Amino acid sequence: MPHIPLSPDLPGIRGAMAFRPETARPLNSLVEILLRGPNTLSPGERELIATYVSSRNCTHYCHSIHGAIAAAHFGGNEALVKQVKTDFLHADIGPKLKALLAIAGKVQQDGKLVTTADVETARKEGATDLEIHDTVLIAAAFCMYNRYVDGLDTIQPDDEALYRERGKRVARDGYVTVSEEYLATHTAAR
Amino acid sequence: MPHIPLSPDLPGIRGAMAFRPETARPLNSLVEILLRGPNTLSPGERELIATYVSSRNCTHYCHSIHGAIAAAHFGGNEALVKQVKTDFLHADIGPKLKALLAIAGKVQQDGKLVTTADVETARKEGATDLEIHDTVLIAAAFCMYNRYVDGLDTIQPDDEALYRERGKRVARDGYVTVSEEYLATHTAAR
Repeated sequence: MPHIPLSPDLPGIRGAMAFRPETARPLNSLVEILLRGPNTLSPGERELIATYVSSRNCTHYCHSIHGAIAAAHFGGNEALVKQVKTDFLHADIGPKLKALLAIAGKVQQDGKLVTTADVETARKEGATDLEIHDTVLIAAAFCMYNRYVDGLDTIQPDDEALYRERGKRVARDGYVTVSEEYLATHTAAR
Repeated sequence: MPHIPLSPDLPGIRGAMAFRPETARPLNSLVEILLRGPNTLSPGERELIATYVSSRNCTHYCHSIHGAIAAAHFGGNEALVKQVKTDFLHADIGPKLKALLAIAGKVQQDGKLVTTADVETARKEGATDLEIHDTVLIAAAFCMYNRYVDGLDTIQPDDEALYRERGKRVARDGYVTVSEEYLATHTAAR
């Protein structure tokens, strides 16, 4: 049961955001820019970074929903997402994304673990400064989202179909659009 | 040396924000609401939570600047800030803030460590749902800011006077005001 009164109809971060719309706005805006804004990394690649970090933080809601969004971007390829979560080095993704996932994995533990060699490897595979910046910030941001979802003990359903359906919708319409809808209709009284 | 080209004039998160103003805006907006927005926790109390989490993450820039802002809010009491960083249970702060710092310390490690008992203790000391929510989100957010600052290997000066001066200014004028100034004048080419 959540540590504070959150709507039982809104699992994961959605309940927390409805409880506090003031902070929901910058949180949604940040994820929209990072995962869907103009970028040489595709939305699917960025969702894989978010999914991988959330998986390492063992935050069921976040790695399930972002995994579902990533799968939607990759034509429904759920096996690819699972492979990235468990062993990305052997996943069917390019060497640049692998180098960026290695950096993201270090940021998930502690930003100080990222070495010049890690960054050079990513650069050799074609990563730009902006891609390196955004990878670090995506990984850092999901260390926030994950702790927010877990620290309030939000509802994190097991039903895979629920994530799959919502994942398709967010992949199509984006975070801000989908979120403003429920903030408008579900904002909790407090 | 930073992993990507950041202005040598802008230490810590300031260089990273100037590099990527699109993400700087929600990052600044979030910290402004969390640490300075309307709240029954004072700005000084909230800065102490941010400082404590940054100190546990060993992010020199963040615990120095937020410690300096906290000190400015508490009439220049740097000894109080140092005590909170090293042993908050014996600091001259109220029992409610101690209970909230205990929750923040768990979120810093892993949100799943926060127990019903931790939350009940905070409630018994008078913490409201909103204060518990914001404590969790402040702690989670600083796990992001800290990793962002460390993961890019930003410049983190040792000079205490630098933090003290800037701390006074942010305590007086706020994050968004102070930040928009340098974003307007220092935005890096990329």
